[in-house]
Amino acid sequence: MSSAHTVTPISQLGEFALIEHITEKFQLRHRTSLRGVGDDAAVIRPQPGMLLVTTTDLLAENIHFDLIYTPLKHLGYKAVIANISDIYAMFADPKQILVSLAVSSKFSVEAVRELYEGVFLACKNYEVDLVGGDTTSSRSGLIINIAAIGEVRENEVVYRSGAKPGDLICVTGDLGAAYLGLQILEREKQIYLEHPDMQPELDDKKYLIERQLKPEARRDVIRFFRDNDILPTSMIDLSDGLSSDMMHICKQSGVGCILYEASVPISDMAYHTALEFNLDPITCALHGGEDYELLFTIRPEDETKLTGEDTFSIIGEITEASQGMRLLTKGGNYHSLIAQGWKHF
Amino acid sequence: MSSAHTVTPISQLGEFALIEHITEKFQLRHRTSLRGVGDDAAVIRPQPGMLLVTTTDLLAENIHFDLIYTPLKHLGYKAVIANISDIYAMFADPKQILVSLAVSSKFSVEAVRELYEGVFLACKNYEVDLVGGDTTSSRSGLIINIAAIGEVRENEVVYRSGAKPGDLICVTGDLGAAYLGLQILEREKQIYLEHPDMQPELDDKKYLIERQLKPEARRDVIRFFRDNDILPTSMIDLSDGLSSDMMHICKQSGVGCILYEASVPISDMAYHTALEFNLDPITCALHGGEDYELLFTIRPEDETKLTGEDTFSIIGEITEASQGMRLLTKGGNYHSLIAQGWKHF
Repeated sequence: MSSAHTVTPISQLGEFALIEHITEKFQLRHRTSLRGVGDDAAVIRPQPGMLLVTTTDLLAENIHFDLIYTPLKHLGYKAVIANISDIYAMFADPKQILVSLAVSSKFSVEAVRELYEGVFLACKNYEVDLVGGDTTSSRSGLIINIAAIGEVRENEVVYRSGAKPGDLICVTGDLGAAYLGLQILEREKQIYLEHPDMQPELDDKKYLIERQLKPEARRDVIRFFRDNDILPTSMIDLSDGLSSDMMHICKQSGVGCILYEASVPISDMAYHTALEFNLDPITCALHGGEDYELLFTIRPEDETKLTGEDTFSIIGEITEASQGMRLLTKGGNYHSLIAQGWKHF
Repeated sequence: MSSAHTVTPISQLGEFALIEHITEKFQLRHRTSLRGVGDDAAVIRPQPGMLLVTTTDLLAENIHFDLIYTPLKHLGYKAVIANISDIYAMFADPKQILVSLAVSSKFSVEAVRELYEGVFLACKNYEVDLVGGDTTSSRSGLIINIAAIGEVRENEVVYRSGAKPGDLICVTGDLGAAYLGLQILEREKQIYLEHPDMQPELDDKKYLIERQLKPEARRDVIRFFRDNDILPTSMIDLSDGLSSDMMHICKQSGVGCILYEASVPISDMAYHTALEFNLDPITCALHGGEDYELLFTIRPEDETKLTGEDTFSIIGEITEASQGMRLLTKGGNYHSLIAQGWKHF
């Protein structure tokens, strides 16, 4: 998978050398990152009055990614994004990450470096410090685990549990595109396996493929909230899919919801590509996952603060728990929401 | 591997249910653990004046453990120990952990629960909160990643980099036992594979096997240091082996060292078992790894504070860097230390 010309087997270098080799040039950005890679543990000194939030995420080859169509640099980038998206979903700023890697000894040093290039790029783009990690071998495929730490003022932290009946349900961006990007990549993989000489033409699907391979986290939205004095009552990032993630908010807030099918944002390209694959676009948006958009609730009086911002769609309303979790279809029917987003078991 | 009678395939339960099922009963112990499992991220509120230290560690099946002779509960326990041992090595108190698990769908819910029982037991014994994690499937074997966070007063943190020429090199406990425990387990595995009906007699090797399967972290030593006003100048936990870990201290402190072979603590059982396996006992102690003892340096004037405590052995002295990293053998010869501890690539 590596595009590098030199190929050094990892076995020649050993773990210590490998970590040093790859992480030695990484500069710490935050004054709260007191000590990074190179001791038993990283050392972080948070500001007084600040909360720390931490999260961790494990990606396994052939479960979460397929190296046939996933460039290693993109994989490293996405692994970081998945974690810092969780940090933003607490209304916190990501500050530090720790990266654990299990790699087959067939991997080259250059391949590991390429993966880390993606990690470093995400760290740079989102101003995050890599402060530690673990590198080991694997008998079977590539495993990446990232743990992330963020900071948030105590009066700003947003949980999944704060939604109240009457609150408006909002989502950023558009949904389903990452899932459709995956369908395209899977289809191209099959074509490639059957006809290795065929060149795929994917230029017109670029947006969907990028949403799958190189997602971004919504730092801009967190900044917009701060600039406009918006404090969501609850928030979650869309990693599992709108339906599952909405159910998390409802369950933890002890409320119900109505989602309006007609208001769920789906890009034209996602819509048409869904039809091309004989899929229902709304199903892709409800259960697709990996969009890394933010799903949140606000008090009705905050609605005007979102007016005119096309980043946001108001897609429903929080109800009493007794009313259940429902989808109001375009045809005017009510369906129960179901959780089928998580497809890895 | 599970001893449970009921076997529920994970595929019946799904990820969310599995996490809830297993972590719902876990009670947070620290008032600094504001929010644990169940949101996008855990929330930790450190005390003013405190540093946080974080570490992460990944264990992969057939690389770091063999399920043929590793009970899942022990595996969960050891995975936590490996991380909090790193926290102690910073002179910090472990407070929170995050656990990521990748399991094959062939694993039963009961097997995952057994593993978590070990995690919970370690959390209880060492007063650590499980505050988050990720559970996913794996196409190939079991992977556990743990990230740990600890706290330490700013004026007490101990790095690997503080050793000075003239400092004494000390180690806790005895070395090589975990490695010899592994040799015994590997031998018994071969015997079992060839003669499945033979019952192993391991009672007289219990100590060595326990050191391998169920190690402990040296919280007692950290407490002794505090009670006796000892602040090591440098410290590391022995996970890779005395030789490699000593080299880490020397390299990061910019110093050399002399280790006295005659002073390296080896238990009688480890000594005799090494000979039984035609191994040199000192080689096992130097390169064995996984003992999770503490290797540290102190100023010479602190030596009397360790007197009469048989937990500690003074095994050498820090020298100028120009003198290199050396072992003084029982025969009076000098050898260069070599790093061959880490055997997983």
